Amino acid sequence: MKEIEVYKHIVQYYETDMMGFVHHSNYIRWMEESRVDYLRQINIDYTRLEKDGIVSPTVEVNCRYRKSTTFQDVVFITVTMSEFKGVKLKFAYVMKNADGDVVAEASSVHCFIDKVGRPIRLAKEYPEYYSIIMDNIVQESDSK
Amino acid sequence: MKEIEVYKHIVQYYETDMMGFVHHSNYIRWMEESRVDYLRQINIDYTRLEKDGIVSPTVEVNCRYRKSTTFQDVVFITVTMSEFKGVKLKFAYVMKNADGDVVAEASSVHCFIDKVGRPIRLAKEYPEYYSIIMDNIVQESDSK
Amino acid sequence: MKEIEVYKHIVQYYETDMMGFVHHSNYIRWMEESRVDYLRQINIDYTRLEKDGIVSPTVEVNCRYRKSTTFQDVVFITVTMSEFKGVKLKFAYVMKNADGDVVAEASSVHCFIDKVGRPIRLAKEYPEYYSIIMDNIVQESDSK
Amino acid sequence: MKEIEVYKHIVQYYETDMMGFVHHSNYIRWMEESRVDYLRQINIDYTRLEKDGIVSPTVEVNCRYRKSTTFQDVVFITVTMSEFKGVKLKFAYVMKNADGDVVAEASSVHCFIDKVGRPIRLAKEYPEYYSIIMDNIVQESDSK
Repeated sequence: MKEIEVYKHIVQYYETDMMGFVHHSNYIRWMEESRVDYLRQINIDYTRLEKDGIVSPTVEVNCRYRKSTTFQDVVFITVTMSEFKGVKLKFAYVMKNADGDVVAEASSVHCFIDKVGRPIRLAKEYPEYYSIIMDNIVQESDSK
Repeated sequence: MKEIEVYKHIVQYYETDMMGFVHHSNYIRWMEESRVDYLRQINIDYTRLEKDGIVSPTVEVNCRYRKSTTFQDVVFITVTMSEFKGVKLKFAYVMKNADGDVVAEASSVHCFIDKVGRPIRLAKEYPEYYSIIMDNIVQESDSK
Repeated sequence: MKEIEVYKHIVQYYETDMMGFVHHSNYIRWMEESRVDYLRQINIDYTRLEKDGIVSPTVEVNCRYRKSTTFQDVVFITVTMSEFKGVKLKFAYVMKNADGDVVAEASSVHCFIDKVGRPIRLAKEYPEYYSIIMDNIVQESDSK
Repeated sequence: MKEIEVYKHIVQYYETDMMGFVHHSNYIRWMEESRVDYLRQINIDYTRLEKDGIVSPTVEVNCRYRKSTTFQDVVFITVTMSEFKGVKLKFAYVMKNADGDVVAEASSVHCFIDKVGRPIRLAKEYPEYYSIIMDNIVQESDSK
């Protein structure tokens, strides 16, 4: 399993709302930022994936907000792949602030389809991608 | 219980992504649009709430994406309040397209705090808001 | 020239920033919302345009902010086509609040290209679209 | 005058639209990202500015789009302060891709006001900020 570098997001002014903190919808975008970065680190390039004819839409997101964040905060995001069943791949995210406090815990589920919307079984059709994923799955119990 | 008008969102070009469909983070924003509109319909005005010193941050969101939507689609969003326990109010959302197909099912949880972050017990401190909420809660089994 | 209905945008919570007002980048999005609505009113459907193989990227935007707007404000946007030279079509926007005060004045320039990026001369290749546009141009001096 | 490090923005998936490229409204946000970073480099901290009671709303933006950008592109943004007249400070931006091609040229104008909206004359009221700005202004003719 590859050693993964934690993703860092610097909060922008345009991500805040009139409550004075980051608007909650932006965390869903940070999940994507960090997921793309994580996949790049395990040698799955999103752009190449789409060139290979694989599209990977999001089928579910969950996010629990623990502490607020605001402009110029740095958010540290740890991403893991926690489950791959059939055509559904699940990611887990832990977001922390510079003090090490958890600011959000999240998960997302994605599937793999071809350009006409037909589900792709990676194990059979793209064994290379399949083995990279299986090598990097962290059982939810493992990850503590 | 008040008769609620379904919220309509017309999908904008800037809400799409390079996959050709709406980016999934926008549904989280539509939840807010429709929640604010729902609260207005049961006589809870968000702006007045904040003037009264009540802030209502989002503590959890969940969204399951069923069908894609794209530019110029109209999305019909039915909002219900499904649970109010202690300081946590839960909303449920069903989003449909013009054909009546469910495009997404979602939920969100919000709490009530004052301007310094102290939890507010609506029942005691704002009985008027509390009774409006209790009168409009739809048990999840009822709503089916 | 067609009588055009003014476009209305209701300001959303997620469009505000920590200054307590709408973040300035959202006005650029409202320009697009109102432009698409304007084109629909003069029978130019954006989706059909793209199906016909015409893509119309934005090549320039300008916006002067006069007064702030915030959550739940209604913004009334008047759109006009002010110039069509060669392959460049210019739009002008006046945005007002409910009191009739101008909150922003803006303009944008768009061109017409085909799917491989080659400029399209509407007059020759799509005379139907060309004549709709020419019939609805409002000289900047006319519009006062 | 301080040596300024060029700002780098990595294009995110959620910044693209169905045309397959970055939606034009995002460049306005990148202007803010790079402006905040530039100000930090010349020792003007945005958060401290607001704590000092100075708010700096955007009063004008202009952007000319030269070449499209897309997911995973790196955009290099050079920011300069080009004019400071009365209460209005103007910034100029040149955005390039990894090949060195200009993808956009932009400018923005900002003013300085206090918390009740009264214009602030930096020269008189905040001479420290004033001198930092004047020391770093690049005449548009200078910058070539």
